[in-house]
Amino acid sequence: MVTTSNKTVVFRKTPSEYPVAGEHLDVETRELVTDLKENEVLTRNLFLSADPYLRGRMRPSPSYIPGYVIGSPLDSYGVAEVVSSKNPAYPVGTIIYGTVRWEEYSVISADRISSFEILPKARELASRIPLSNYVGVAGMPGQTAYSSLKAVAKPKAGETIYISAASGAVGQLVGQLAKLQGLRVVGSAGSDAKVEYLLKELKFDAAFNYKNGSVLESLREAAPEGIDIYYDNVGAEHLEAALEVLNKYGRVVACGQIADYNTKTPYGVKNLMYIVAKSLRVEGFLVTDYTRERKDFLNEISQSILNGDIIYKEDITDGLDKAPEALIGIFHGKNFGKAVIKIADL
Amino acid sequence: MVTTSNKTVVFRKTPSEYPVAGEHLDVETRELVTDLKENEVLTRNLFLSADPYLRGRMRPSPSYIPGYVIGSPLDSYGVAEVVSSKNPAYPVGTIIYGTVRWEEYSVISADRISSFEILPKARELASRIPLSNYVGVAGMPGQTAYSSLKAVAKPKAGETIYISAASGAVGQLVGQLAKLQGLRVVGSAGSDAKVEYLLKELKFDAAFNYKNGSVLESLREAAPEGIDIYYDNVGAEHLEAALEVLNKYGRVVACGQIADYNTKTPYGVKNLMYIVAKSLRVEGFLVTDYTRERKDFLNEISQSILNGDIIYKEDITDGLDKAPEALIGIFHGKNFGKAVIKIADL
Repeated sequence: MVTTSNKTVVFRKTPSEYPVAGEHLDVETRELVTDLKENEVLTRNLFLSADPYLRGRMRPSPSYIPGYVIGSPLDSYGVAEVVSSKNPAYPVGTIIYGTVRWEEYSVISADRISSFEILPKARELASRIPLSNYVGVAGMPGQTAYSSLKAVAKPKAGETIYISAASGAVGQLVGQLAKLQGLRVVGSAGSDAKVEYLLKELKFDAAFNYKNGSVLESLREAAPEGIDIYYDNVGAEHLEAALEVLNKYGRVVACGQIADYNTKTPYGVKNLMYIVAKSLRVEGFLVTDYTRERKDFLNEISQSILNGDIIYKEDITDGLDKAPEALIGIFHGKNFGKAVIKIADL
Repeated sequence: MVTTSNKTVVFRKTPSEYPVAGEHLDVETRELVTDLKENEVLTRNLFLSADPYLRGRMRPSPSYIPGYVIGSPLDSYGVAEVVSSKNPAYPVGTIIYGTVRWEEYSVISADRISSFEILPKARELASRIPLSNYVGVAGMPGQTAYSSLKAVAKPKAGETIYISAASGAVGQLVGQLAKLQGLRVVGSAGSDAKVEYLLKELKFDAAFNYKNGSVLESLREAAPEGIDIYYDNVGAEHLEAALEVLNKYGRVVACGQIADYNTKTPYGVKNLMYIVAKSLRVEGFLVTDYTRERKDFLNEISQSILNGDIIYKEDITDGLDKAPEALIGIFHGKNFGKAVIKIADL
């Protein structure tokens, strides 16, 4: 029996409000048996995606996504390299993308391995498309932006879109795709540096720091003609302000409500009557319902990255030791760009 | 110059909460000059529609529907008979449907008359389709139910729909149409008599009096497998309970939010995160966007009434003197069935 030491991020305890590193999420070193059965592979895990929705997995079941199990590792979308294989479809050296446990190495069972996508060009393109991109702009958050903008927002050139958490994993791509489609793009974020990034780097038409005064007033000023689409990553006050400012037949893409993920007393939205009065559509979606678009998305987005049409800011945390803080930091708005955990380089 | 005495319901003052008869809405007798210019008609007004959305017209502009003008008559959908005409398209005896002022007689100007629909069969069918039906089941509320159920709810046989204010103008038709389409139908209303009507007359599968305990618990009991569609006429607590109980990919038809029409402090809905988590769609609509369906609707619904496939309860108030109380009564849940004001019979 061959074993290896395996640093692991473990779910310790269900948080009732903000999770705390060391209390709810903790790092420990475990032993991993690396002997493989038929069709199994051993991976060296490289990059992990730290996403707001993972907070929803830190709740006791029943929930709408499988919850983390106390005492077990976290998992999330990630990129890994096959370093040992008894599966001819996933030979040594293959770069794969899928649900990766937050640990240095994983043995992936025969029945789980088929859920992983092979990234055939990832190694060859690694100098121009960093591997971290596959958990961000070219991964689930990127496809979330791409598919939901198209299928839920149904944008028309000349319309105005407002994006909250606009420098985040999804928001920054939504904004750039909307610009490419001829929309007027307004964003908000939680620091002046983020706002500057939106305006200077991403060329948003307007942006504001929501911490500097009322969201509603800032939004009104940034979108004096109203908005047609609200891309909601935040909920609460932002959603209420957007409902106020949305034009007739406006749409809300309900992507996330991070403002309420860590509180026992969620914000009460009081102006839902606008949905009736202005014929609005507020719609959620599951990115996993768009897997048929995954290939097209990956081709398009890779080409856009290579062409320089799309840029993407990542906030990379180095090593699993700091992974709990990195994940928790998202809920405090500490990440600037897509939060990624790097375990190892190729 | 020929004049006639003309009883009129006048908008006196903008209410901040519940309107009060005599204070915000009042009845007075005015003089009407009945001499007609070219293309004008004189109508004897017969039936008026008293609808919850009219509360939205008792606000100062800007609003999303034109507000009532202080000192001027109310108006709403209504049925009238042409009693004098200088317009060959609308000869004496024509029964018309459109926006009627709340007064006994109206002179309709040349440019307004074309907005009225002629009801060619109304007189001939009056013994089997009462004229009052044209402001209810065969009018705007009926088409609201018909078009929004089809276009917004997109129901599938076997699904469960929950309807609030289910014995009201829109709700009772939504429920019957849903039954005809093979749905399981759950409704709520504000009295035991209304609940009995839903169960016994309209053959709903389940119904509850929302005043007897928690809406959420009652809904859970009535729909143990959850609901797929919520047809919302009420908002507030009903909407919150529905969001809780809606199944994945559920839809909310945002038709009205009467619970909040007469308060300065609307209810705050705290569980909008379900829109994200369960991929829900919450959508408003304007019945006026479905005017192209009006003819099909009127044919279908008339046939259904004649066949006895659809029944429809009306709460008819006799005479303009009691019209303010009748309209205000809606906001207190006093009407049992569609609220109609009868000014005169054919």
